[in-house]
Amino acid sequence: MLVLGVDPGSRITGYGLVEKQNNDIIYVDSGLIRSSNKTPFYKRIHKIFETMVEIMGHYHPQEMAIEDLFYAKNIQSSLKLGHARGAVLIAAVQCGIPIFEYTPLEIKKSVVGYGRADKEQVRSMVRVILRFKGDLTLDTSDALATAICHVNWSKFESV
Amino acid sequence: MLVLGVDPGSRITGYGLVEKQNNDIIYVDSGLIRSSNKTPFYKRIHKIFETMVEIMGHYHPQEMAIEDLFYAKNIQSSLKLGHARGAVLIAAVQCGIPIFEYTPLEIKKSVVGYGRADKEQVRSMVRVILRFKGDLTLDTSDALATAICHVNWSKFESV
Repeated sequence: MLVLGVDPGSRITGYGLVEKQNNDIIYVDSGLIRSSNKTPFYKRIHKIFETMVEIMGHYHPQEMAIEDLFYAKNIQSSLKLGHARGAVLIAAVQCGIPIFEYTPLEIKKSVVGYGRADKEQVRSMVRVILRFKGDLTLDTSDALATAICHVNWSKFESV
Repeated sequence: MLVLGVDPGSRITGYGLVEKQNNDIIYVDSGLIRSSNKTPFYKRIHKIFETMVEIMGHYHPQEMAIEDLFYAKNIQSSLKLGHARGAVLIAAVQCGIPIFEYTPLEIKKSVVGYGRADKEQVRSMVRVILRFKGDLTLDTSDALATAICHVNWSKFESV
């Protein structure tokens, strides 16, 4: 099973693909969708949608995992995050990929073992779980963590 | 010039089309994109995107006007509004329709003459400006007001 994890943001959206093989979780790909501050906001949002459709069309993940929607610092950042997250959801529905949502607590617990882990700890554990040797930005490791959380969750589900 | 005005919301999105003919603004069409509370959130957001693409494909408006993004009551409603507004922006970029943004103050001033008008007053003036005799919900009259604001703004621009 190939799972796409996404960490949406209006300036940087991270994505990561992992595959469940027996009891292993294998790293497949990860990356960032970035826009400069100078790009009009609506173009940034459309770029997230367009690039997500490309990634989904290229890898055909069976399922997508994403953080659920009730966490943001303030009204303005919530509005912007909402646009970015909406772009990712629309792409998934457009491509027929089922969506699974997890709270930050569930994601951190699933990867690090406790819910108050910081992003650096999440990244370290993502590298260990996936036996990944290369560089990982914090946005891609958050996206991979979300995908890992979903794989772990499905594992429990199927027991 | 045919202008599409949109008032986005995750449960109800209003839209309205008006045409500028010489010094008149003519009513063309308006309506609502509604979803029940029972519909999963991501399906509601995709429905807004899909329906907006249909409307844009049907009417081919030259320009779209929408409220700008820095106004919402709280974090949770901002997140949801952001998703809905993102869906509308993505549809417009996808259909190649230029986007123009106005503050609620600009919209109300343009239609009613002062910025603190309530929704009922906006609706009354929309009906007068468009010589519209039928029923108008508050969501469609807000969308029509946004379109009227853009037509008036363009009028000043071209003087």
